[in-house]
Amino acid sequence: MTEALATIFPPNRITRDAEDLDHWGSDRTTAYRAAPSAVVFPETLDEVVALVRLANARAFALVPSGGRTGLSGGAVAERGEVVVSFDRMNRILGFDPAERLVRCQAGVATGALQAFAEERGLFYPVDFAASGSSQIGGNIATNAGGIRVIRYGLTRDWIAGLTAVTGAGDVLRCNNGLVKNATGYDFRHLLIGSEGTLGLVVEADVRLANPPQPQRVMVLGCSAFDALMHVLGAFQQGVTLSAFEFFSDSALAKVRAARDLPPPLRDACPFYALLEFDESALDAASRAFERCLERSWVADGVLSQSDAQAARLWALREGISESLAPHTPYKNDLSVRLSDMPKFLEAADALISQAYPEFEVCWYGHIGDGNLHLNILKPSGWSEPEFRAHCHRVSPELFKLVAEYSGSISAEHGVGLLKREFLGYSRSPEEVALMRGLKRTFDPNGVMNPRKLIP
Amino acid sequence: MTEALATIFPPNRITRDAEDLDHWGSDRTTAYRAAPSAVVFPETLDEVVALVRLANARAFALVPSGGRTGLSGGAVAERGEVVVSFDRMNRILGFDPAERLVRCQAGVATGALQAFAEERGLFYPVDFAASGSSQIGGNIATNAGGIRVIRYGLTRDWIAGLTAVTGAGDVLRCNNGLVKNATGYDFRHLLIGSEGTLGLVVEADVRLANPPQPQRVMVLGCSAFDALMHVLGAFQQGVTLSAFEFFSDSALAKVRAARDLPPPLRDACPFYALLEFDESALDAASRAFERCLERSWVADGVLSQSDAQAARLWALREGISESLAPHTPYKNDLSVRLSDMPKFLEAADALISQAYPEFEVCWYGHIGDGNLHLNILKPSGWSEPEFRAHCHRVSPELFKLVAEYSGSISAEHGVGLLKREFLGYSRSPEEVALMRGLKRTFDPNGVMNPRKLIP
Repeated sequence: MTEALATIFPPNRITRDAEDLDHWGSDRTTAYRAAPSAVVFPETLDEVVALVRLANARAFALVPSGGRTGLSGGAVAERGEVVVSFDRMNRILGFDPAERLVRCQAGVATGALQAFAEERGLFYPVDFAASGSSQIGGNIATNAGGIRVIRYGLTRDWIAGLTAVTGAGDVLRCNNGLVKNATGYDFRHLLIGSEGTLGLVVEADVRLANPPQPQRVMVLGCSAFDALMHVLGAFQQGVTLSAFEFFSDSALAKVRAARDLPPPLRDACPFYALLEFDESALDAASRAFERCLERSWVADGVLSQSDAQAARLWALREGISESLAPHTPYKNDLSVRLSDMPKFLEAADALISQAYPEFEVCWYGHIGDGNLHLNILKPSGWSEPEFRAHCHRVSPELFKLVAEYSGSISAEHGVGLLKREFLGYSRSPEEVALMRGLKRTFDPNGVMNPRKLIP
Repeated sequence: MTEALATIFPPNRITRDAEDLDHWGSDRTTAYRAAPSAVVFPETLDEVVALVRLANARAFALVPSGGRTGLSGGAVAERGEVVVSFDRMNRILGFDPAERLVRCQAGVATGALQAFAEERGLFYPVDFAASGSSQIGGNIATNAGGIRVIRYGLTRDWIAGLTAVTGAGDVLRCNNGLVKNATGYDFRHLLIGSEGTLGLVVEADVRLANPPQPQRVMVLGCSAFDALMHVLGAFQQGVTLSAFEFFSDSALAKVRAARDLPPPLRDACPFYALLEFDESALDAASRAFERCLERSWVADGVLSQSDAQAARLWALREGISESLAPHTPYKNDLSVRLSDMPKFLEAADALISQAYPEFEVCWYGHIGDGNLHLNILKPSGWSEPEFRAHCHRVSPELFKLVAEYSGSISAEHGVGLLKREFLGYSRSPEEVALMRGLKRTFDPNGVMNPRKLIP
């Protein structure tokens, strides 16, 4: 195979070095051991096509690799696959100011695109803690969401066109940045969120937004979870929110300890909400805050007086995931309908206290989107495999609860390797059968990210 | 077959009456003769499932029928199919105010949903001339767009969940109104725009928007088409447009004659733009107008001073399609990237004047979305088949031009029967092959709206 790869890639763009295999064959999950047979670094669409055709001819598997910030093992190469890194395809190919469309190669970092937009007085609104290293191709493959979905939607909403290579090695040029195009099945939307199992995203036309007005940030302390939902309702009457996040006091404790940050409020509260909104809505926000205080939905609050203070408040939320990493968290990423959230959380909390009495549990997430990140922390006395196995035994109970609410067992982290055996809790047998059919249609020889997503 | 249908539907919900067959077997295209074998009116999801299973068992074809306002023959039953009318599934099943989600049956009229939203102080923003009779199921099947896409997007952007019956008779419950759900291929987005060829949409969770601020309408007269694009650019700096439409003077003449309306401006101009925007942006809009006057992009303009006047200005644009109907127009519905629009229009205009020297041509459309409706009017001396055959001979030349710009041969009308032989101008052979594969996966026996969309 190495010889065959050498017909496509020069020596400096193929590696079999053990450290490289480990680096490019892993993502941020810790449960898997990377074991690819090689990593290649294409620079052109033609090279990607040649690679996929070779994989079909020689029957080897490909694993796409972006910023490898995924949390479900979607970019892990465990079984001798060839990893396709998009690190060398990180150029912005064009910009159309009239349409606010950027043509990116798949390896452009989210942060680089954000900076590109900002330099032009525009805004790329998809943002999350890993935006510095995550890549557009990976964002598309997982339909990345993050912290401003409540206002700006998901990656899907900003992709006006994409170029992909199917598992059969065919090039699809989807939609070309058109606003309206009613000419049959929309493969762009099918590829978005398909986790590299149907094809490799090589280029994308990304739409940019007008820049937001100056923003203000509030952190509010709440005594109960269902109060959070009332707070959301109170603010949504009259304030267009750019973010509505939440974290529990235990999550706050971790990020404060890791970064040596002061508490946002004088007295601790069990739950906190972080709100971001246009400065022009400050009066309406203040009125909503007063109403929340009167009804005791909120115990206390702080409003950013400067961008620097806003950034410090955001750090309390955005630093959580990183600050939990040393505790080897078992991550759940759940969503239910917003109106089901209080009941669901109550039931989930009861289940978890009973199933994990000895474990510390951190809740946080994008509560304005109905999205909860539930992190179970490994006690220092437990080995990682032992801890993971125990959590894995509890997961079906939790996912059963999610299914009762017709929720999602993976709101924004994707399915990958980590959750594929649980897919049936969010998708019916008929849907899984159709997914298999689609996979066969796009990738008849099964070379594209095998064993991911579909159980 | 009638006996078999009678096992599912009572006599008052099956008809074989000739007039009924003609009515429910047609849409707004005039090129086809309706010839279904029966029309049925399901009232429940279970009846739809039983019908699709029967169609598979007895090998008869189904044609979904919504408001039948389509312009591409997507809802025409030409060959003894059974028409599935959703007229009896027109109930709103539930409303979640916290999430602003309405659960609708497929047969709810667009206008009824708009009215439902308005009664609750909310807004369903997808709107077009046929919204009074078009149905949500049909909107989903064609991913309907219309007049406010520039601000609010397409039907796709408002569908948070849908329930469909596949061609195999399986029920898919897609997404349940979740904001975030990263659990594999998104069948909701695949079904949207699939023109009933994969399955029947039975219910949908539709998201509502906050109501817009009071709106103002401007009609501007332009001497040249490319000036329109400059006008768009000038207004987009500082004014959030709710609509940016255009029509040619010949289109205006038709609607004025049909409805006996006064001209919007003192002197006629070759092209007109209709803009709608928030009243709060009036100062910015006035400045943009001044700038356009100074640069001679605009010759004159009128600003609505009341809602009634705004409605009268809108009538000049929204009445066009209806006023052209007596002229048996041959309709094209094209889109290109906005920045390609001036060059494309110039080339298209040259081609058309040369190909149709004896025909009157009316241009209008959603120019802010890159979407042109090009209507060729039948001269009174020509028979309809003769006229249509001539236009059909010219279409490939026009579509070739669209393809050179990687545009769409059907921006929002769908493909149906009318354009399926031309699909290759917007979709590659590889894409068409994948479409066939998907069709087989969802509809193995080919019972769902056969002969539509896919050539």
